[in-house]
Amino acid sequence: MTITITAFDRSPDGGSGLARDTRVRWALEEAALPYEVRLVPHAAMKAPAHLALNPFGQIPTYEEDGLALFETGAIVLHIARHHPGLLPGDAHAQERAVMWIFAALNTMEPPVLELFTVRILEGDKPWAAERLALVKDRLRTRLQQLSSRLADADWLDGAFSAGDLMMVSVLLRAKPSGILDAFPNLAAYVARGEARPAYQRAFAAQLAVNTAPLPA
Amino acid sequence: MTITITAFDRSPDGGSGLARDTRVRWALEEAALPYEVRLVPHAAMKAPAHLALNPFGQIPTYEEDGLALFETGAIVLHIARHHPGLLPGDAHAQERAVMWIFAALNTMEPPVLELFTVRILEGDKPWAAERLALVKDRLRTRLQQLSSRLADADWLDGAFSAGDLMMVSVLLRAKPSGILDAFPNLAAYVARGEARPAYQRAFAAQLAVNTAPLPA
Repeated sequence: MTITITAFDRSPDGGSGLARDTRVRWALEEAALPYEVRLVPHAAMKAPAHLALNPFGQIPTYEEDGLALFETGAIVLHIARHHPGLLPGDAHAQERAVMWIFAALNTMEPPVLELFTVRILEGDKPWAAERLALVKDRLRTRLQQLSSRLADADWLDGAFSAGDLMMVSVLLRAKPSGILDAFPNLAAYVARGEARPAYQRAFAAQLAVNTAPLPA
Repeated sequence: MTITITAFDRSPDGGSGLARDTRVRWALEEAALPYEVRLVPHAAMKAPAHLALNPFGQIPTYEEDGLALFETGAIVLHIARHHPGLLPGDAHAQERAVMWIFAALNTMEPPVLELFTVRILEGDKPWAAERLALVKDRLRTRLQQLSSRLADADWLDGAFSAGDLMMVSVLLRAKPSGILDAFPNLAAYVARGEARPAYQRAFAAQLAVNTAPLPA
């Protein structure tokens, strides 16, 4: 079985690990699965061949034996369900791990994405500074709630799971803003995720792509 | 087995079906499962008893035989996996249905939520009108991509699935803005979802809560 994912040939983040292929690489590394990467140049992102794989013209996609998926949540959950290492054995605990994947993507990531909207997409607008304060306030509310739930635990629900993989990945996108510094248990939680050997390998692999010479 | 979900005692939308309990009610109706509803007054939403069920202080939650979940994506997926009616039988088609749940919640819902941010949370700000145009442009891009993928099909991947349930539910939140009118196939897709008897029962049930007298 060959697994092929897609990634940017040059990530907008310069290889700091925030592009979404890192989440999929991390899951594949936790499950000890080999994979191939097809790089998609920016110009090909909205071309028919890539839109056939992902109608929204984004990376990553995932192909394996006639199955083609997009959406990192679906890809990570697929890997987690079919290989050991990312979901607990207990049925209820499994459901809660899936719940944390959704919480990361649908409750935590939207306010994190607003940081990018205000700084990048609307960074030249006269309202940028005032909105940044509002956006940070809304994000802080969510972070405080997550911090209260995590308390002094290592992971969100017992052992490390795909839910933690996704939550740490989303929080990593907020980290450069410095907003996590006010929540020491969340900062330590993210650091625990980053310290996992599987994450380290995933990070190194995406960095290697972004520092390699582009094909002529 | 008793299923209990939570809902607003008075939804901010006045019972127009946009609160997230409607998504769970719809899934339960498609699966022909009876359920009970515990109404959570606004003042109790951030109190310890409800935060124990959902650390972000939101509705709906889902309880069944010792399992407690929040996140509508996780709840709908749980229902779909354990009861017929919401997932196709073919393994790959099942994975794609899950993919569309994530696409609805992580790719389509964030720009839809921006409509609420600009109109409600920041409706009194001097930038509201100018930002509304930007937010609508970004949402139109996503809608155009979805419209192109759906083309003239009835549902996103063959038969109706939990993926359609979630995508229709997210698009329903954009419908009052009128933005769907420019995409006749998406408007018809949403109308097909609304016409399903299970949706009709879910809508009526949430409306009944919102028009009933509050307890003294």
